[in-house]
Amino acid sequence: MTAEIWDVIVVGAGLSGLSAAHWLKKRDAAMKILILEGKDRVGGRTVTVKLPAANDVDRWDLGGQWVGSTQTHVLKLIKELGLEVYPQFNMGRKVHHMGGPTSKVRTYKTSIPTLSPVVLMDFTQILWKIDRLCATVRVQDPSKTPNAEELDSMTLHTYIEKHAWTAELKEEIGLCSRSVFGIEPSQMSFLFFLMYATAAGGLLKLLESTPGCAQEFKIKGGTQQLSECLADRVGWKNVRLGCAVTAIWQDAEWARVVTATDTFLCRAVIVTCPPHLAAKINYQPALPSQREFLTQNMPVGHMIKFIITYKTAFWREKGFSGEIVAGSSTECPFCVTFDATSPFGNAALVGFIAGQQASHWESKEVGERKNAVLSSLVKYLGPEAASFIHYEEKDWAKEDYSGGCPVNVMAPGLLTYYHPSLRKPFGRIHWAGTETATQWCGYMDGAVQAGQRAALEGEKVWRKMMGIQDI
Amino acid sequence: MTAEIWDVIVVGAGLSGLSAAHWLKKRDAAMKILILEGKDRVGGRTVTVKLPAANDVDRWDLGGQWVGSTQTHVLKLIKELGLEVYPQFNMGRKVHHMGGPTSKVRTYKTSIPTLSPVVLMDFTQILWKIDRLCATVRVQDPSKTPNAEELDSMTLHTYIEKHAWTAELKEEIGLCSRSVFGIEPSQMSFLFFLMYATAAGGLLKLLESTPGCAQEFKIKGGTQQLSECLADRVGWKNVRLGCAVTAIWQDAEWARVVTATDTFLCRAVIVTCPPHLAAKINYQPALPSQREFLTQNMPVGHMIKFIITYKTAFWREKGFSGEIVAGSSTECPFCVTFDATSPFGNAALVGFIAGQQASHWESKEVGERKNAVLSSLVKYLGPEAASFIHYEEKDWAKEDYSGGCPVNVMAPGLLTYYHPSLRKPFGRIHWAGTETATQWCGYMDGAVQAGQRAALEGEKVWRKMMGIQDI
Repeated sequence: MTAEIWDVIVVGAGLSGLSAAHWLKKRDAAMKILILEGKDRVGGRTVTVKLPAANDVDRWDLGGQWVGSTQTHVLKLIKELGLEVYPQFNMGRKVHHMGGPTSKVRTYKTSIPTLSPVVLMDFTQILWKIDRLCATVRVQDPSKTPNAEELDSMTLHTYIEKHAWTAELKEEIGLCSRSVFGIEPSQMSFLFFLMYATAAGGLLKLLESTPGCAQEFKIKGGTQQLSECLADRVGWKNVRLGCAVTAIWQDAEWARVVTATDTFLCRAVIVTCPPHLAAKINYQPALPSQREFLTQNMPVGHMIKFIITYKTAFWREKGFSGEIVAGSSTECPFCVTFDATSPFGNAALVGFIAGQQASHWESKEVGERKNAVLSSLVKYLGPEAASFIHYEEKDWAKEDYSGGCPVNVMAPGLLTYYHPSLRKPFGRIHWAGTETATQWCGYMDGAVQAGQRAALEGEKVWRKMMGIQDI
Repeated sequence: MTAEIWDVIVVGAGLSGLSAAHWLKKRDAAMKILILEGKDRVGGRTVTVKLPAANDVDRWDLGGQWVGSTQTHVLKLIKELGLEVYPQFNMGRKVHHMGGPTSKVRTYKTSIPTLSPVVLMDFTQILWKIDRLCATVRVQDPSKTPNAEELDSMTLHTYIEKHAWTAELKEEIGLCSRSVFGIEPSQMSFLFFLMYATAAGGLLKLLESTPGCAQEFKIKGGTQQLSECLADRVGWKNVRLGCAVTAIWQDAEWARVVTATDTFLCRAVIVTCPPHLAAKINYQPALPSQREFLTQNMPVGHMIKFIITYKTAFWREKGFSGEIVAGSSTECPFCVTFDATSPFGNAALVGFIAGQQASHWESKEVGERKNAVLSSLVKYLGPEAASFIHYEEKDWAKEDYSGGCPVNVMAPGLLTYYHPSLRKPFGRIHWAGTETATQWCGYMDGAVQAGQRAALEGEKVWRKMMGIQDI
C-alpha cells in the first residue's frame, strides 16, 4: 500500500478546519497540510446560494449568517480576507405571537417584546437569575462552577419550570431554545446552557440583533466566502472534497487517515467535524471511553432554514422590521423570521423551523411546508407576503456530513464528568469545531477560535516530531 | 463484484440476533440466514469465562447473568435449549453502607434494608409515587402516558430531588441507578426510567433477588451457553465472527450488507446491536432523521464487573449473604456485590463498579482497582476477604462492539417525540436488541422478545418478496 505523507491533516473543510489550516500555513508556508472533506463543497454549516430575486439573482445564506462586534476571531478573519459586513436590518415594528393560535398578535419596537407587566417582571427576574448564574460559570472547565453537579443534573426545562411564574414566559424560553440551538429545553443540560450563554457574554447576547449580539452583522456576498477565501489561501490542491474520513489509526510514528479509497499518513490530525459525526469515525487505538460517552450524547439541533425573495420589502413600507417570533402553540411552523434584504437591495425574509417543529414539518411535502410558512407570513405581515418571487429551504438534518445544525449541545449529567475529553488531544489527534470553543461556542467565531487553538496544538506536535524548535 | 445472496441477514450474534435467527429457522428450515458479528465470539453482552477456583476451575459470567421467573421469553428458551437455572443465594445478613466513609455499616436480613424510620418512610412514599406513575405508563407508546412531556423533560435526578426528603434516600437512588443501568440519575429521562421499570413489572422487580425479580436465578454453566446453543441450532456455518457491518445499502430489490471485506445481498436485515453502535453504521438511503436524533442520544451504561474466587464462601459461614450495597459517598469503588458461588460449590463473589465510579476507576491500574475492591470487602465481610484465589474483571466500555453495558437509556426530551423510530422498520431493515423490547427491556428476556418480534417482521417481508403465503 502506498500512502501520501503530510505534516498535518485536517478532517473537515468548514470554517474551523480551514481556519486551522490557514493559521498553520501562515506560521510555516512549507508545512504540508491536507484537508479532507466529505461534502462536495467547503463551508460546513455555512453555504451561500444564488436565488431568483427582484433584480435578477442574488446571494443568500442557507447556513450560518450572522456575526457580532464582540466576535473578535471571526471579525479579524473577515478583515484579513478583505470581506465586509453590514448590519442586520432591525428598524420598525417586530411581531410577537405567543399563547395559542387565537391569542393577540402584538408588535413592538424595542429589543424586548411588549409583554404584559406580569410577564415582563417574570422575564426580568429570570434574566437576572440566569445572568447571576452565568457570572459563576467557568467556561474553560464548567465542572468547577459552584453547584455544577446540580446544575448539570437538570434540563433547561426543569430550571424554567421551577423559576418562571408565567406560562407565556415558559413558551418564550422554548422559542429561544429552538431559535438558538434547534433543540427543545428538555434536551439540554442547564449547566451547558449557562456555559453557552457565558461564552457569548450573556443570555441576551444570544437573542438580539443589537450591538455586540449574535445577530448584529451579515457578510456582504455571503458567509461561505470565508471558507472559499481560506481555501484560496491554503491552496485548493490541498483540499479534497468528497473524501469522507472513515478511520484514524495511530502508531508510534504516524497517524493514518483513511477514506473509502485512500490512506494518508501524517504527523498530526485536527478533527473538526461536529461531535456526533466525529463519534462515527473508527479510531485505533480506541478513544478513551469518557470521550465516547460524551460525544455519543451531544444532541445536535434540527433546523429547516428558508429564504423567501420578494419584489419589494413590503414589510418595511408597512413599518415592520421583518422580525417575527411565534411560539409553538400558535400553529405557526417557524419560530423566528428576520429581514434578509441583500446589501444590493434585493428584498427577502429569512426564517427557521426548528426543534420539534422541524421534526414535525420535515415529513411533509415541501409545498405543504411552504404554504404553511406563507400563510403565517400573510397573517403577521399582510397579504403582500403571498406574492413572492422564490421560496428556498434547507433541512440541515438531511445534509450529509452535517446531520443537523446549528450546534451540538450536551445532555444532562455529562458535562461535569466527561467535559475534559471534548478538547483533550488523543495522541496525534486534536479536536476543533465550534463545539470545542471557549468564546462564542456554537458560532462562526467559535469555529475560528477552536481551529486556531487546535492548530497551535498540532503545530507543537509536528515541531517536536520534526525536531524543529518552537517559534 | 460477486455477492452472496441470503434471505435474511442478522447484524449481531448476541442473544437477540441469535433468537431471531433461531425463530426464523424453526419457521422454515430452508430459509437462508446469515449472522454477522464484529466480535470473535457469540453472546454480545453475555460472556462466560473459566476461572481458577477452589476446585480447579469453574465458569462465571462476566456479562449478563440473572433471569427471573416472570421473564417468560428467556425461561422458555432456556428450557428449549435444555439448560437449567438455580437460585441466586440470598440468605443471611446483607451489608448496607450509605452516608459517607465513616458512617455506620448496617446489616439486615429482609429484602428492604434496615433504614432509620425517617428514611424508611421516605423510601416507602417514593416507591408508592413511582409505582403509581408506572401504572400510568404505556410501554408500547410512552408518549401516550399522561403528562408524558413533563415526565420526559426531567431527569431521574430532578424527580428525586423534588420528591425525596432525605439525603440518604437520594444516595440510595443513585446507587440503584448505577447498579441497574450503569448510569447516573442525572443522565436519564424520568419517563424512560418509568417505562423501563414498568416493562419489568415495577421498580422493586429491578432491584431484588426475590421471586419474580431481576436477580432471581442464574444459568448453570453460564449464560453464554444460550448464544452458543442457539448458534448450534442455527448452524455455525451461518455465523460469521469478526465481520463487523459497516454499511447497509438498500435498493428496490435488495439490501446490501457491507463489511470491511465483503458485501452480502439479502431480502431483509435485522439489526440487533445497541443503539449507539447501530448509529455508527452507514445507511443508504439515510435513516429518517428522527431515528438518528434518537439513537445518537441514548447513553449506554458503564460497568466494570468483577469476579473474585475464594477457597470457601467464608461470608456464608459468618452469616453474610454476600450482598453488599455501598453508596458513592463511602469511597467504596463498587456499588453492589452478590454471592457468586457456582452450582458446583466453587465460592466466589461478583460485584460492579458502575456509572461515574466506573469512569473514575477505569483510568487506574488493575492492581489499584483490585486493592480498593478487596479492602472494601475486608471492611464489610472481614479479613478473610483478602485471601482470594483469583480476581477477574471486565470493563465493558473497553469491549469492541459493545462500548458499554448493560443497556442504553434515553436522555431527556427524546422519548416523547422520537421514540417510535426505535422499532419502526426502515425499508428492509428491522430493529431488535433488548433496547427495543416491551417486556423486560434491557434484560436477556427483552433481547429474546425483541429478536422474535423482529424475526416475525422480517419473515413477513421475505414471504411477500418471495410470493409465499403467510403461514
